[in-house]
Amino acid sequence: MTRTTTLEPAGLRVRHDELTPRQVQRSIGVPDTDRGLPTAGFPGWFADRLRGHRFTVDRVPIDELDGWSADPATGDLGHASGRFFTVHGLDVAVEDRHWQQPVIDQPEVGLLGILAKEFDGVLHVLMQAKMEPGNPNLVQLSPTVQATRSNYSGVHRGAPVRYLEHFLGPQRGRPLVDTLQSEHGSWFLGKYNRNTVVLTETDPPLAPDFCWLTLGQVGALLRSDLVVNMDARSVLACLPGPAREPRALHTDAELASWLADERATHRVRHRRIPLRDTAGWERDEHRVARPDGRFFTVVGVRVQAPNREVGGWSQPLLAPNAPGVVAFVTRSFNGVAHYLVAARAEAGFRDSVQVGPTVQVVPGNHDRPPPFLELVLGAAAGDVRYDVAHSEEGGRFLDATSRYLVVDADRTPDAAPRTPPPGFCWATADQLDALVLRGDVTVQARSLVAALRTGAVAP
Amino acid sequence: MTRTTTLEPAGLRVRHDELTPRQVQRSIGVPDTDRGLPTAGFPGWFADRLRGHRFTVDRVPIDELDGWSADPATGDLGHASGRFFTVHGLDVAVEDRHWQQPVIDQPEVGLLGILAKEFDGVLHVLMQAKMEPGNPNLVQLSPTVQATRSNYSGVHRGAPVRYLEHFLGPQRGRPLVDTLQSEHGSWFLGKYNRNTVVLTETDPPLAPDFCWLTLGQVGALLRSDLVVNMDARSVLACLPGPAREPRALHTDAELASWLADERATHRVRHRRIPLRDTAGWERDEHRVARPDGRFFTVVGVRVQAPNREVGGWSQPLLAPNAPGVVAFVTRSFNGVAHYLVAARAEAGFRDSVQVGPTVQVVPGNHDRPPPFLELVLGAAAGDVRYDVAHSEEGGRFLDATSRYLVVDADRTPDAAPRTPPPGFCWATADQLDALVLRGDVTVQARSLVAALRTGAVAP
Repeated sequence: MTRTTTLEPAGLRVRHDELTPRQVQRSIGVPDTDRGLPTAGFPGWFADRLRGHRFTVDRVPIDELDGWSADPATGDLGHASGRFFTVHGLDVAVEDRHWQQPVIDQPEVGLLGILAKEFDGVLHVLMQAKMEPGNPNLVQLSPTVQATRSNYSGVHRGAPVRYLEHFLGPQRGRPLVDTLQSEHGSWFLGKYNRNTVVLTETDPPLAPDFCWLTLGQVGALLRSDLVVNMDARSVLACLPGPAREPRALHTDAELASWLADERATHRVRHRRIPLRDTAGWERDEHRVARPDGRFFTVVGVRVQAPNREVGGWSQPLLAPNAPGVVAFVTRSFNGVAHYLVAARAEAGFRDSVQVGPTVQVVPGNHDRPPPFLELVLGAAAGDVRYDVAHSEEGGRFLDATSRYLVVDADRTPDAAPRTPPPGFCWATADQLDALVLRGDVTVQARSLVAALRTGAVAP
Repeated sequence: MTRTTTLEPAGLRVRHDELTPRQVQRSIGVPDTDRGLPTAGFPGWFADRLRGHRFTVDRVPIDELDGWSADPATGDLGHASGRFFTVHGLDVAVEDRHWQQPVIDQPEVGLLGILAKEFDGVLHVLMQAKMEPGNPNLVQLSPTVQATRSNYSGVHRGAPVRYLEHFLGPQRGRPLVDTLQSEHGSWFLGKYNRNTVVLTETDPPLAPDFCWLTLGQVGALLRSDLVVNMDARSVLACLPGPAREPRALHTDAELASWLADERATHRVRHRRIPLRDTAGWERDEHRVARPDGRFFTVVGVRVQAPNREVGGWSQPLLAPNAPGVVAFVTRSFNGVAHYLVAARAEAGFRDSVQVGPTVQVVPGNHDRPPPFLELVLGAAAGDVRYDVAHSEEGGRFLDATSRYLVVDADRTPDAAPRTPPPGFCWATADQLDALVLRGDVTVQARSLVAALRTGAVAP
């Protein structure tokens, strides 16, 4: 289905590019609202959303998923419509490491869109309380629109996607940001979603399950476990950033050069293989899993959710076998906060290497702990600037929870030296923002960037 | 082979990011040099380079290429070492179009590096007169270093790559720019090269076949047919740009949104197939070609070139069957020059769609001419700001020449309206520069950006 949008020139006017960061910064500084959902009212509203929905999510054998079946030749899991996604095998080689694994292949680019509007001169964002079957607590705050093309092009044959007209087509609002961003390269094959924030000057009606919040309110909610979902965090990380920081350890070109060098060096090669031939993994009627219990298991769920686009459905989900740890180590150089980024080579990245957080690991999956894990998990309480549990995309991942941390190493500088080990580099917050806008940052690091951007991380 | 560079912090210092564009602009304004190769001396020097080398390039059947052979099972062409590149088949689906074709698969990221140095406060770039077997005139000006990893990691078993130490390893210079850039998505599968400009403060000896030029001199050479090679043009397009232009028709976010929309819309799917099963193509001992004569032919050459890293070698080359046309249509809006860019979906792009020039076509390959081709080829002489023949990478493509044009449509505005057809968008030169730095622009468009950046296009 071909659809192409014509971009109408706006005529003689000044670019808004300089305006938007100020609007964003101002909204981050506003901790409450009386035009949207007041902070005091949020807990009750959020609890009502959960209570209001009589959905159920049941584990079922993958052999009994409605509409899903295994290809007779390959064992690959797919939907009868040919849409949504498939689970097949992948043979991966990264330098001298070689392995095989199941992977989720979902070639369509989904839309993650937050609608923004100024009330009394303060930017508010329209957030949705949305159920996803893989969320540990089922309902989390999501972007205004969180839709695959299958959702909004009618393959689901469900209700239309609310507020979609603000993001696509002739009535759409003014984009403040619009970028394609990667998702989990260890679980998805080349999955990218469109992350956008659109400003409207219309007065859209407020639908049930939606609320207007300032960015300061969203930042406060990012300090709570399991409230703001991954898609929302990903979009928030793309918000236009504040002014540039001239006292960074590295110039932007040096940082770009570090990344280009890592990308030129790390060859990631992969090829599709049949799921049933994937070495190290075993399948029965219930699941696809490893006998050694590492990494993840592919399971099935059946969902009944009256308020969703479709009344009920079945699907596979990828269930990590243990919680993860995602962390930035931070230090102050030249009086400016720097964050230690790592070059991450993952099989599913189109560009082989992306900029990840200092630590991104599920302890127990690997024989040796990665660098900085001990520093992060052993930090004194006073050095922990952020420590919140978040889960990954609940439409594909079941109970995929990680502890997200920002740990200050100024008092333990030897553990996080100015000249870090190979594969690591110090970057300022504004350099992180620029890397995000280029689509160079992992979704895990973007969750931490969202917390940094919205003031959720203690200074 | 794992190699990772540690980035050493530079300590307390101001970012050079703001300095570099001024250095670049200044050098573009300097039309001659007495510290490098004076303009008057260039033609003689360049002719000497060609005369000085007794190389020969002979066409040979692909079945007789030393070290190359067809895989018995698939017919894929490959080198006995397993390195360099392979030619295999590709099955491609873009929206409702579906075809098969041979494609060059070269997974390693090559290095295209220009060494820069200030003489008397003016930036000079070190250019190399380099023979490539596919160049129509064999010798063209290339970057200082133009090397695959096979070149510099010793697979060629030839001489070391000159000046490489300025780009890799502990002695390297300060990067002014360093990005991964796409190459021809219709001929290469996911090929990206590292494009970098590095500033040195050392005084490297001048090797034979190399010369120092100002960017103004390079711009003047870009007005001559077949002098500056594709790799040099690609790197020059990445030079840090001048100040931003606030009177663009579209904000940067709107332009990004247009591109994100095109990327979300155009699904490009491809899968590798055996070369011998590639529908529409036939192979004999001499070549792989189409009976209808369209697109390209895969041929073989044997090279004898005493001054190259290796004394002689054989290889396949991809020979387009006719010259191409690559053009920007330009108009002035709000008193600012805008260039009409097109969203191009090509099978080999990792991101499915890149920003291309207004026109990029080999007339005769398709039944219908593309939009704006008539405008470009029928423009009055006074509206043609640039019209120069350039060829593509002579290490992979044989006589792949295109006419590169910039055509002013201010006097024919109806033919290039302010609201262009779907798939097209107006962008200013500084917006083009920013898109290039993000790695979003096709190599053909980058050639034109290089001409714009260095003042080669008439104002």
